Amino acid sequence: MHKLVDPDLALRLVLDATSELAPRPTALARALGLVLAAPVRADRDYPPFDRAAMDGLAVKVDDAGKAVRVRGEAAAGHEATGSVEPGLAVEVMTGAPCPPGTEAVVPREDLTANIQGFVLPSHVKPYQHIAGRGSECAAGAAVLAPGDVVTTIGVAVLASFGVAEVSVIPRPRVAVVVTGDEIVPAGKPVGPGQIRDSNGAMLSAMVAEADAELTSLRFAGDSPGALREALRGPPEAEVLLLTGGVSAGKYDLVPAALAEAGFELVFHKVQQKPGKPLLFGHRAGQLVFGLPGNPLSVHLGFTRYVLEALAKLRRRALPGPQRGELMAPLTVRGERTSFVLTQVRRNGSTLEVTPLVGRGSADVFASARARAYLRLEPGAHALPVGAPVEVTWAGAPVY
Amino acid sequence: MHKLVDPDLALRLVLDATSELAPRPTALARALGLVLAAPVRADRDYPPFDRAAMDGLAVKVDDAGKAVRVRGEAAAGHEATGSVEPGLAVEVMTGAPCPPGTEAVVPREDLTANIQGFVLPSHVKPYQHIAGRGSECAAGAAVLAPGDVVTTIGVAVLASFGVAEVSVIPRPRVAVVVTGDEIVPAGKPVGPGQIRDSNGAMLSAMVAEADAELTSLRFAGDSPGALREALRGPPEAEVLLLTGGVSAGKYDLVPAALAEAGFELVFHKVQQKPGKPLLFGHRAGQLVFGLPGNPLSVHLGFTRYVLEALAKLRRRALPGPQRGELMAPLTVRGERTSFVLTQVRRNGSTLEVTPLVGRGSADVFASARARAYLRLEPGAHALPVGAPVEVTWAGAPVY
Repeated sequence: MHKLVDPDLALRLVLDATSELAPRPTALARALGLVLAAPVRADRDYPPFDRAAMDGLAVKVDDAGKAVRVRGEAAAGHEATGSVEPGLAVEVMTGAPCPPGTEAVVPREDLTANIQGFVLPSHVKPYQHIAGRGSECAAGAAVLAPGDVVTTIGVAVLASFGVAEVSVIPRPRVAVVVTGDEIVPAGKPVGPGQIRDSNGAMLSAMVAEADAELTSLRFAGDSPGALREALRGPPEAEVLLLTGGVSAGKYDLVPAALAEAGFELVFHKVQQKPGKPLLFGHRAGQLVFGLPGNPLSVHLGFTRYVLEALAKLRRRALPGPQRGELMAPLTVRGERTSFVLTQVRRNGSTLEVTPLVGRGSADVFASARARAYLRLEPGAHALPVGAPVEVTWAGAPVY
Repeated sequence: MHKLVDPDLALRLVLDATSELAPRPTALARALGLVLAAPVRADRDYPPFDRAAMDGLAVKVDDAGKAVRVRGEAAAGHEATGSVEPGLAVEVMTGAPCPPGTEAVVPREDLTANIQGFVLPSHVKPYQHIAGRGSECAAGAAVLAPGDVVTTIGVAVLASFGVAEVSVIPRPRVAVVVTGDEIVPAGKPVGPGQIRDSNGAMLSAMVAEADAELTSLRFAGDSPGALREALRGPPEAEVLLLTGGVSAGKYDLVPAALAEAGFELVFHKVQQKPGKPLLFGHRAGQLVFGLPGNPLSVHLGFTRYVLEALAKLRRRALPGPQRGELMAPLTVRGERTSFVLTQVRRNGSTLEVTPLVGRGSADVFASARARAYLRLEPGAHALPVGAPVEVTWAGAPVY
């Protein structure tokens, strides 16, 4: 196991242990934004019949310039009540199947009426205003290929084809275990010396924001038995997140419990602030992150490592760093890489970045407005107002 | 009612008729990304007790440099089993409430052991390694203000405060009514002259992608009675989307049905391609969009108008235009403003934009890979490869 690695090595070790998920059949309604694992082919010709593209008359081409009588109509979704013959037209509505015998459609606005019926224009082109069967897409044509993302238009196409389930790289599943005897789940009374859960609520929100799937949220206290229970059995999730219990204290049970449960531990502790006591390992393809107990360490650990693993699991890119301008001076000195939470505001084309320098990694209260991280390497930094900086989104981008 | 307006006037008319939603109490688990309507204040001091910030001993300051005996421990989530007295220390764990009598915490690594117990360092500062009660946040302090977005860290803060419900500008509710006798809902057999629903499936996905709430998806055929039924009664949704039936054909029942149901119609038809026969109106604060029947018109209408209305309803910004570079020549000529769907690929810092010029607004198949729109004003355009262009996202941004 690596000890006290730098943040870039830590990320590399996480990604090295992460493989893309195997494709899974997924209901179309849940497939938006996922990556296709199999080609999508048209099940029949589109349109499936010669379709009128205008409201008007279905006619014979040789009737150009002549008067025709109208017998029957063809409305969308219905079979025509007449057929086209020389001198005899059928009224057609946009989207309707062309009646038998149709050679062209003449739009309503091109018609004039006289006592014998409707007079067609002097030129009528064969197939005009007809979307011919298969003209948009022939049966069997591959419309989408493996690797394509299912867009909203893709959903429309798949629905047209009658596809109810599609083979995609699925959303990763994430299970969360909150440790610590002092943590009280939402809705329960808080005793003396206790605090309400915030990490479980925050991680649930972060998993949702990442469009991953939360399978469970458990509270294990500081009980080795409860922890063992949570780690037992076939994995319900590809990613397991634990909070708390990863330092070196008397009741920091996570590293031993993970080793006992058969996880290979890859690294413990990262040269970063906040979130130094991060633990990472895996077991049979399941990734485990032992996040420290304080909320800002959990937030950084998720944003910087878990989110990257989730993206690789599902073959999805994350937004890259954004350039911005510092709105307040920032002085940071330390032996570890610092990830400073910042407020972010768009002002025209400028991204205004205001650092939120709290009183420590537990100071979650000052950070509730944070939208991005600013990274500073070990050493002394004194950045003036106006300094160009690069930030990484801490959640949804600010537009 | 305005007829055949230009796309910018159309958007202005939509936004003029759109007001921000009234705040609604929302479960914390559903509040992520929403805008707060009321300040969030700390329910008690944080930390709620003097909290040990390190593993070590709770001691008296005057015992600096002396040997102390250890009597009892204080673990996180539990009351201490002893109190600190001169010469007597209590073992403390990070996160534990400091035992009675604590004046400072000495970290484990600063202790040396001798036969009489543990020897403290020669200097021990009052309150060292103690997070004092209320030091992170005092009871009653406003941590978040109206207008702040609920971030994941905000969720952590609210959970800490025991907040189960929060007053926010809610997600807009959207109801969808698909018209057209030719449309068959998913899972039902398709008869001759019929096609499967794609607009209902696509709009459901678009509403989900916009993080709005779909309240219903109905199919009304071309029946005035079914349409009347769908428009009757108290609105279940702030936004009503209809597809089809907005042209001037014999079975285009939507404009009359809306007028009959008491909607004020604001405009009908927009000088744009695709999606010209767009209809917009409102009734008692409820917005209605009559989208044309073809999927690409629905997609543009939603992306350009509905999405903007949803953003204003919930006070949320949409991403602005992105600069890119054209990867294939584009020739467009028309009397209307053209919105051309494009594929988009990031290549380093360049956004590579490839237009998908289909054979008409019904050509949804070629567009399933589209990720953005390129706007071209009326007239003739011949853009070469490499031309700088601006695109607007058609759904999730491409990173």
